[in-house]
Amino acid sequence: MNCEILAVGTELLLGEIANTDAQMISLGLSELGINVYHHTVVGDNPARLSAALEIAKNRSDIIITTGGLGPTADDLTKETIAACFGKKLYMDKEQQERLHQRMGARMTPNNEKQAMLPEGCEVLVNDWGTAPGCAFYAEGCHVLMLPGPPSECTPMFKYRARPYLERLCTDGQIIRSRFIKIFGLGESAMEDKLSYLMNTLTNPTAAPYAKEGECEVRVTARAASEKEAYALIDPVVAEIRGVLGDVVYGVDVSSLEEVVVKGLTEKGLTVATAESCTGGLLGKRLTDIAGSSACYVGGAITYSNEMKMKLLGVKKETLEAFGAVSAETALEMARGVRALTGADVGVSTTGIAGPGGGTPEKPVGTVYIGISAEGLDKVIKPDPRYMRSRQRVRNSTASHVFNLIRQEILEK
Amino acid sequence: MNCEILAVGTELLLGEIANTDAQMISLGLSELGINVYHHTVVGDNPARLSAALEIAKNRSDIIITTGGLGPTADDLTKETIAACFGKKLYMDKEQQERLHQRMGARMTPNNEKQAMLPEGCEVLVNDWGTAPGCAFYAEGCHVLMLPGPPSECTPMFKYRARPYLERLCTDGQIIRSRFIKIFGLGESAMEDKLSYLMNTLTNPTAAPYAKEGECEVRVTARAASEKEAYALIDPVVAEIRGVLGDVVYGVDVSSLEEVVVKGLTEKGLTVATAESCTGGLLGKRLTDIAGSSACYVGGAITYSNEMKMKLLGVKKETLEAFGAVSAETALEMARGVRALTGADVGVSTTGIAGPGGGTPEKPVGTVYIGISAEGLDKVIKPDPRYMRSRQRVRNSTASHVFNLIRQEILEK
Repeated sequence: MNCEILAVGTELLLGEIANTDAQMISLGLSELGINVYHHTVVGDNPARLSAALEIAKNRSDIIITTGGLGPTADDLTKETIAACFGKKLYMDKEQQERLHQRMGARMTPNNEKQAMLPEGCEVLVNDWGTAPGCAFYAEGCHVLMLPGPPSECTPMFKYRARPYLERLCTDGQIIRSRFIKIFGLGESAMEDKLSYLMNTLTNPTAAPYAKEGECEVRVTARAASEKEAYALIDPVVAEIRGVLGDVVYGVDVSSLEEVVVKGLTEKGLTVATAESCTGGLLGKRLTDIAGSSACYVGGAITYSNEMKMKLLGVKKETLEAFGAVSAETALEMARGVRALTGADVGVSTTGIAGPGGGTPEKPVGTVYIGISAEGLDKVIKPDPRYMRSRQRVRNSTASHVFNLIRQEILEK
Repeated sequence: MNCEILAVGTELLLGEIANTDAQMISLGLSELGINVYHHTVVGDNPARLSAALEIAKNRSDIIITTGGLGPTADDLTKETIAACFGKKLYMDKEQQERLHQRMGARMTPNNEKQAMLPEGCEVLVNDWGTAPGCAFYAEGCHVLMLPGPPSECTPMFKYRARPYLERLCTDGQIIRSRFIKIFGLGESAMEDKLSYLMNTLTNPTAAPYAKEGECEVRVTARAASEKEAYALIDPVVAEIRGVLGDVVYGVDVSSLEEVVVKGLTEKGLTVATAESCTGGLLGKRLTDIAGSSACYVGGAITYSNEMKMKLLGVKKETLEAFGAVSAETALEMARGVRALTGADVGVSTTGIAGPGGGTPEKPVGTVYIGISAEGLDKVIKPDPRYMRSRQRVRNSTASHVFNLIRQEILEK
């Protein structure tokens, strides 16, 4: 089975937004073993949408469209697709009623248009917005229509389109995956270590993915039930964890900061941050996680030397002898923020994020990370070779901090 | 003239990355007045790339491809396009020499492949990576090939493809734009105020864009010289600034935080941050700007009440009487961080980012922002209706803080 993802929206062609829906759907389809051979984007233009549909239905088994389901005159996806497949639209009373309930006084006549659906379709009920999606099979092709806004498209794919597709491609079986998350090992090194497994497994399969500064392995199984699927998956996950060792920071978790927040909260420990080169990014990423207030007390952003001394008690002699970007300063910052806040764990960053400020001895990307806790005082210096831009230095530094908390506090 | 953007890369179809190149190129083309009618993505597959090229050359005046120019066996864009337009590839000695110089000892025989180019093409020299791009005209179609990695594609478009395209579509004239950046006014309200201008102007033109939580107007002129273009643009920019007033935060600037960093640095003022609900995001966004150390001294992240008292001197009675999320606490935080750091300006955030923690009196999205400086103590409470998710509450709060610094400090 192969699928084409056809996005409808002039805003994409004007460059106002990137086509993140196509990325999200592609990831989901690869999990189902459905090949994606084409992404296409057209504007809110019925003639060009029709032409794109004609092309798509001749080369694809499944067409998933995003966008153009709304109430305005521009929103022409359903009308155009129905015409292209020789179907009429009907007013779906149940969806009309849902719209009235959802919109109340805001309901206008043109909003009713959203409840017009192609005859014989399966309605994909939208619990995250107003426009319902739908799916039908015609002319040898499965067509699924999803709304465009990512806040609707993502759950509509996961909870509505995915079960429909799962029925199509698994002969009644279901598909489940686990994601093994890795920090501190490159994608090609990971593939070298796991190629013996990835090349021989058939059910489950194991596939590598590279993410910004991290990588992951997805283990996917088909089985009659969820329980049987995980029974196939879990021994492989255990084997991969064994082969890769400590670079695996979690399974089915979203990020290093999530692991840190959950882990510290479970242990009843608190953490405080002392940031120089990351300038608030450590706190930002920790507090991206809802519930982080259970373990994160806060900290200090000390961008200047004066603030490092004043807020964190870094010694003037240390700054003069070793510089602000040094192991000694990093350690005093971590100790200092722990003393300042009374947190169980203090972490710190100091480095040269660039683009200016580098020297031959301390080039851009030179970073020291400190951690201090009961019986622990440690500084690491990540390899600066992979830190090529200001954003990358800062993001990678923050990830190293969270990984250090995991290794030194959560897994000891 | 209309253009199709054809991306080549299996990583896009697997969902590993979003097609941000297409977004960037689309934005640039709209500035040149070139219509984009299609984005297409195919994998590293010569048959499907050939088929996509056949479709594109029948419907588009210009085809811009991204990706597939590298040294590996997967990189087949040039070979496939050349075959599709009946052209041979030749070894470009100059590019071969550049590759040797750039790669030195890392140069391997398959790297040479990158210097193979279609006969009769114009070389688009790549100063940002190894693979050169190229452009040619054949069968009624202009074809431009750019490398895929965004760090190469973006400057290659701006400095190589854009001048080529400018020659095509302006009869020897050049095109220049200014971007008017707006915070605190919705896109439709902005269009209402400016429709009299946008509908009547021809050279320059004025076009609105919505960005996440902000909007902008792009004013674009064609003229024989840069000077003449800006002579057409600048009176319109002045008129729009006059109509919109204080919601315009800058022209040709990238962000509110850039305006703040530049403005404070010019005035020789320093700022410190006291963050509760933003948890480090204020510092993160300020320090995203290279050179921010000239005005940003740092500050405190006080996620807990205890830290608000301990680090910032917020009074226990204030927290008990009004709560952590209150105008009174926000003001004491802003004053406190100014006293703590000695900065000229102190700013603070306290609020309920969600998803939990909301009450009927203080729903999710309730945020207070404080600012304190010589002769200034002020608190604002942004409208919570537009703050629907944790990320949006936090991002919008940070933008309001920067806008407040602009209004109260930079423009007074």
